[in-house]
Amino acid sequence: MIRHLLSTADLSRTDANLILDTAEEMARLTSGRSVKKLPALRGRTVVNLFFEDSTRTRTSFELAAKRLSADVVNFSAKGSSVSKGESLKDTALTLAAMGADGVVVRHSSSGAPYRLATSGWIDAHVLNAGDGTHEHPTQALLDAFTMRRHIGDLEGRRIVIVGDVLHSRVARSNVSLLATLGAEVILVAPPTLLPVGVEQWPGEMSYDLDSVLPDADAVMMLRVQRERMNAAFFPSAREYSRRYGLDARRFGLMPDSAIVMHPGPMNRGMEITADVADDARSVIVEQVSNGVHVRMAVLYLMLAGADENSADAQEAVA
Amino acid sequence: MIRHLLSTADLSRTDANLILDTAEEMARLTSGRSVKKLPALRGRTVVNLFFEDSTRTRTSFELAAKRLSADVVNFSAKGSSVSKGESLKDTALTLAAMGADGVVVRHSSSGAPYRLATSGWIDAHVLNAGDGTHEHPTQALLDAFTMRRHIGDLEGRRIVIVGDVLHSRVARSNVSLLATLGAEVILVAPPTLLPVGVEQWPGEMSYDLDSVLPDADAVMMLRVQRERMNAAFFPSAREYSRRYGLDARRFGLMPDSAIVMHPGPMNRGMEITADVADDARSVIVEQVSNGVHVRMAVLYLMLAGADENSADAQEAVA
Amino acid sequence: MIRHLLSTADLSRTDANLILDTAEEMARLTSGRSVKKLPALRGRTVVNLFFEDSTRTRTSFELAAKRLSADVVNFSAKGSSVSKGESLKDTALTLAAMGADGVVVRHSSSGAPYRLATSGWIDAHVLNAGDGTHEHPTQALLDAFTMRRHIGDLEGRRIVIVGDVLHSRVARSNVSLLATLGAEVILVAPPTLLPVGVEQWPGEMSYDLDSVLPDADAVMMLRVQRERMNAAFFPSAREYSRRYGLDARRFGLMPDSAIVMHPGPMNRGMEITADVADDARSVIVEQVSNGVHVRMAVLYLMLAGADENSADAQEAVA
Repeated sequence: MIRHLLSTADLSRTDANLILDTAEEMARLTSGRSVKKLPALRGRTVVNLFFEDSTRTRTSFELAAKRLSADVVNFSAKGSSVSKGESLKDTALTLAAMGADGVVVRHSSSGAPYRLATSGWIDAHVLNAGDGTHEHPTQALLDAFTMRRHIGDLEGRRIVIVGDVLHSRVARSNVSLLATLGAEVILVAPPTLLPVGVEQWPGEMSYDLDSVLPDADAVMMLRVQRERMNAAFFPSAREYSRRYGLDARRFGLMPDSAIVMHPGPMNRGMEITADVADDARSVIVEQVSNGVHVRMAVLYLMLAGADENSADAQEAVA
Repeated sequence: MIRHLLSTADLSRTDANLILDTAEEMARLTSGRSVKKLPALRGRTVVNLFFEDSTRTRTSFELAAKRLSADVVNFSAKGSSVSKGESLKDTALTLAAMGADGVVVRHSSSGAPYRLATSGWIDAHVLNAGDGTHEHPTQALLDAFTMRRHIGDLEGRRIVIVGDVLHSRVARSNVSLLATLGAEVILVAPPTLLPVGVEQWPGEMSYDLDSVLPDADAVMMLRVQRERMNAAFFPSAREYSRRYGLDARRFGLMPDSAIVMHPGPMNRGMEITADVADDARSVIVEQVSNGVHVRMAVLYLMLAGADENSADAQEAVA
Repeated sequence: MIRHLLSTADLSRTDANLILDTAEEMARLTSGRSVKKLPALRGRTVVNLFFEDSTRTRTSFELAAKRLSADVVNFSAKGSSVSKGESLKDTALTLAAMGADGVVVRHSSSGAPYRLATSGWIDAHVLNAGDGTHEHPTQALLDAFTMRRHIGDLEGRRIVIVGDVLHSRVARSNVSLLATLGAEVILVAPPTLLPVGVEQWPGEMSYDLDSVLPDADAVMMLRVQRERMNAAFFPSAREYSRRYGLDARRFGLMPDSAIVMHPGPMNRGMEITADVADDARSVIVEQVSNGVHVRMAVLYLMLAGADENSADAQEAVA
């Protein structure tokens, strides 16, 4: 059904719900430890093509593929000759020629997975695992999956996203997926860390975290990129924590049913305090688990259907 | 039976013998090349979490897990954000959330695997693959396994350990395991390279290698850490070799039945001469083989028993 | 049949044809996506021992081994203590002791795989994946395989190899394999980039690319090693391109049936222009695919036959 997964903006509500429902099925099928592994992608090859380090995301995709019995090859392009933009084409051609069925791409340039997928260089399915400040669609899908499990259907739900929205692919992917799913998004950020043109994004904006928390169904804290802390447009670390950090007092402003999220890895004490991070209503660890199930779902939907009819593929999972 | 493998000091003689007997079985079952792979851990996930490089130990665990049909993911934490001590907790939570059944940890801080196992952060079984100057339990188990094969029951046997005992996790793990198994340990080291409080360790001490060799059943040479060679408390390389190196003359002082051991990698010409290293009574290469069998045994005993009754697990191996 | 694969000079014409025919079979068996994986090497262990980075070659061997159901361990020796020549012996002993059935070696020293294979250190099969400026036999085999598919039997065919022959293991391996298969080789290079003693090599030499193209059946462009570009014996980049680069004009001099080859990765615009690289008669991407099939063939022929009779091994593939 889905040929490439490049951006959550490409997903219809039907597509998104199919992925989330399939992820539910993956979670159900692999929750009993004795049947953890499914044969659905046996003989398929998934290549992790990482031009940027990301041990967490790479490991999550690797485990997802292995639980579907695919072969996984890690092709770290960092520091090698292929890390230069101009040879992305030849790298893609090489991987396709080696028989990759799916290519999971992490790249520091926004749009690199899109070029890979749409230039006709490569026959394989392309999964965007984070490109520059652009998109990180599986992160948004695992976030939606996690929210759905805790607060139900997202239609009309109020989701607060807090932090450096300007540089965050996580925020970008979430905003469009949440809009597709009918949720209301409230972005909270220092004025200098909101993207130009954010007024055209679906949702609201605010500079005042306290005022939006009482109506939130979920609060998603973005990771502070410490290397940006010295930049002119960024508040000092202390100032940031004071105005945009989630601490016990602010946590107390949230409704009792609202959940706390973070894509990880956290800077404990910076954008979130340790006690909030470890509270029972923080679902941060669950997001990691759900990441494996959501990635199994997209790999399955993209790769298993390719040369079998849908009924066979369903059977391979069941 | 064993929940975590953190230190040989935690092992009863019964535990230790169960591991060694199981390793015997693993060696037997995989010695014919055509049946090298056992299905016992199919669907289980083993994560190699290495905060320090160690290609040998990582490879040995990886092969052991794969021969039991587990999926293996290498999670190299070196150089990444997770290499800082404060986020060990979040790394552990992440791996557990991804569904790791066993986590093999190598860390430069003594006690890191212990914190991982006992802080309630993580549901998985933790295997210490070397922590600082503290412990390296699978190394001691493979050493005991190797000795048992050559010199029989270790009760009353005299095992000489030579070198930088102060900094050696190999020595530390061996001393307590050998005591548990009833062997007598003789530590030979320069005075500055014996730990404070070594008098309370089980066993004897000596500064004179020549005098202890004639009664040895096994002589274990420790690796010289060259980077410590300039330290004030360390003899010069030449002086070290002369006083504590095992050369042909010293080898001649050993009984004909005694064996020579080394945890590798060797500094040939420093703590051991090439001719001794390559002698028929040197079992150094065998130690490496036995390492895979011992690691298969501990992975099997820790991970296979988890959700099956013992009879099923036995069957899975047989 | 073949114990080690160190140099194409060791292969008889019968050996070479057996490998190429087996590769044909591998391509046929795995071309339908649903049966991509063969059980032939299940339970066998292949170690990629890379003292030099080469993501492409490593990935190709890794995929080949996995498609035969072998377990693969990547043992990167770069930067570790084993990267020093003197411990190659101990590294080899370690890998053999861990039960490696095949060791794929890439090393910057010419002759390292030969020492590994012939010193009696190691029981495993050794496959040379590139040693210094010496040999890269699987590259030559995949080149021959690709040529055979396009221009038929190589007997009497004229193969032009262009570039830095002096430093090229690809050229060296191709020259001897092509001679064995009865092809005529024409080497085209700047005078300073031809090896001393090249007159004794089989084949012809030329400094004038234009004059040899009209009779070529295949033209193989070698990769320019940019790091050698400043050396006294190397023409400037512009001069090199002008005299030895394959551009549209030169491509027009070739017969319509002749093919263009390159071992990759290409320097587009240097030794080959983009339009020629992407032409339908360029088989560069196909070389990559064929690399996996040829490596499957050599792994199969070397490792599957080891402890089974030939009939069983054939069955395991069929």
